[in-house]
Amino acid sequence: MIAARAEKGIEVSEVFFVACGGSLVDLYPSKYFLASESRVLRTDLYTANEFVHACPKVLGERSIVILCSHSGNTPEVVEAVKVAKSVGSITVTLTHNTSAEIANFSDHNILYEWGDESRVKNNPMAISLALSLEVLQQADGYPNYREFQEALYKINDVVAAARCKVEERVSIFAAAYQKEEMFYVLSSGASYGHAYGFANSSLMEMQWLDASSIHSGEFFHGPFEVTDKKTNFIVLVNEGRIRPLDERVLNFLKRYAKNYVVIDAKELGIGLLPESVVEFFNPILFYSVLCDYRAALAKIRNHPLETRRYMGKVEY
Amino acid sequence: MIAARAEKGIEVSEVFFVACGGSLVDLYPSKYFLASESRVLRTDLYTANEFVHACPKVLGERSIVILCSHSGNTPEVVEAVKVAKSVGSITVTLTHNTSAEIANFSDHNILYEWGDESRVKNNPMAISLALSLEVLQQADGYPNYREFQEALYKINDVVAAARCKVEERVSIFAAAYQKEEMFYVLSSGASYGHAYGFANSSLMEMQWLDASSIHSGEFFHGPFEVTDKKTNFIVLVNEGRIRPLDERVLNFLKRYAKNYVVIDAKELGIGLLPESVVEFFNPILFYSVLCDYRAALAKIRNHPLETRRYMGKVEY
Repeated sequence: MIAARAEKGIEVSEVFFVACGGSLVDLYPSKYFLASESRVLRTDLYTANEFVHACPKVLGERSIVILCSHSGNTPEVVEAVKVAKSVGSITVTLTHNTSAEIANFSDHNILYEWGDESRVKNNPMAISLALSLEVLQQADGYPNYREFQEALYKINDVVAAARCKVEERVSIFAAAYQKEEMFYVLSSGASYGHAYGFANSSLMEMQWLDASSIHSGEFFHGPFEVTDKKTNFIVLVNEGRIRPLDERVLNFLKRYAKNYVVIDAKELGIGLLPESVVEFFNPILFYSVLCDYRAALAKIRNHPLETRRYMGKVEY
Repeated sequence: MIAARAEKGIEVSEVFFVACGGSLVDLYPSKYFLASESRVLRTDLYTANEFVHACPKVLGERSIVILCSHSGNTPEVVEAVKVAKSVGSITVTLTHNTSAEIANFSDHNILYEWGDESRVKNNPMAISLALSLEVLQQADGYPNYREFQEALYKINDVVAAARCKVEERVSIFAAAYQKEEMFYVLSSGASYGHAYGFANSSLMEMQWLDASSIHSGEFFHGPFEVTDKKTNFIVLVNEGRIRPLDERVLNFLKRYAKNYVVIDAKELGIGLLPESVVEFFNPILFYSVLCDYRAALAKIRNHPLETRRYMGKVEY
């Protein structure tokens, strides 16, 4: 489709990522990747209802819009794909539902795998990264294309090994923090979206616990003033060029906090991936590992991850 | 400077906004404005240390980088302006300090007014918007250029009237919420940055209170599950095309929450600005009004806004 348009002289000029909640989190690394690596493509990330109500004026036939909805029927995402389609954008949808409504307005619908038995390469985060890689390669030519492919190939084993490594830790975490009611989750770079996701989806939505995500770089410009020996922190330490930001948070917490949990992608083995692209894969590792942390917490708190009081239960 | 480059055939292709904490919040509306309105310019917003460590590859002589530091000496912002300068970008710095270090690496340094007696038009948020307007006008030609200028001219009176209107309300808020320890702050569109800013700067930094900002569009995709009659919410309701997102939050809170404060830009008189551009001015109104809310809270809690335990007091 991109090639067909290129023949008509229509080059892709922007890639927009649109979703809600956990699916938005899955697209965050792709937006980060293109914003960082492309010299040609404009990119941005939108919660679907903002995209619908305050659509960027540039949206048109030179735009690729990548949308994700697990159920495939999220009303705001359905609206968003309609908006994109109506102005001639190339629409790519990702969903886990074989009869997803978003697929009706999609040029390319991708059905992804989900669940503990699936390979992370076939989950939406990696699929979206792989799509972005191809778009980047066509638009810019990406010098680390092969390394990125290699990382996509290797990431499943890296994640599997990391999950083994945290097996005991997650129980220790759950036991220690089971009575706590407020958590700060910190990270940066490609993984900031997963700090946000762990706060908003895993803790607030699935555990009804108070939470807030803080960018490691922003921590020292205000938020760190809440730090004391009772404040709870979860820090996702990236490997790659952004690592110093997360390490700086750790160094501060070592001195002024007591309750903090460190999940360090480097210590968990992500260094097996090529150095030139490793930073973009941190969030894939964090997501899988954090699923184990939240499962342990849910179990000890007797609050199943699926329990909702509003979502899908009342009108809103 | 832009004109001089254009003569050499170098057109501006992107505008990056770079700062930390409260200054980053001041730049948020400009990024939102350009992302929404420009068909030509790429734009993004970076906390300075991420910009330094994971600098976008596109950064170069076709880039304008607008940086803000109140003190003018924030180390991460100093580094960021050096990075931008080193690759030939046009650098514009905003500061309140006549001997700001960032000015040493700046093509255009703008000294802004600050404090209760200054006109909001001369504060960094409006200055950055006015700069963005001119860049947009040169790059795209902006059909609402005159209306935007009119709004810049009128906003000070609108804000002054709004502050009068909330004079009693802020005391009622402070009295009612003085013992509360956790707040969610919600908004969307151009004002999301100020939901973030009120949480991270006003509540966490200046009051050592727990806080979290939630985008109104994201609220229904996870975070709203924490809602009960004890959860505290502050909702910034925008005027303009994004308004339905904030209203939807209010409608939900009316049914399921009890402790929520509404700051509605429309009710506070922002409708005096031209309809075509009003949405970009909501955050200017919110910032000034929220300063009165936080001042009242600080007073009743006997916790002065200037009190810090780490910032500028310890090494980090």
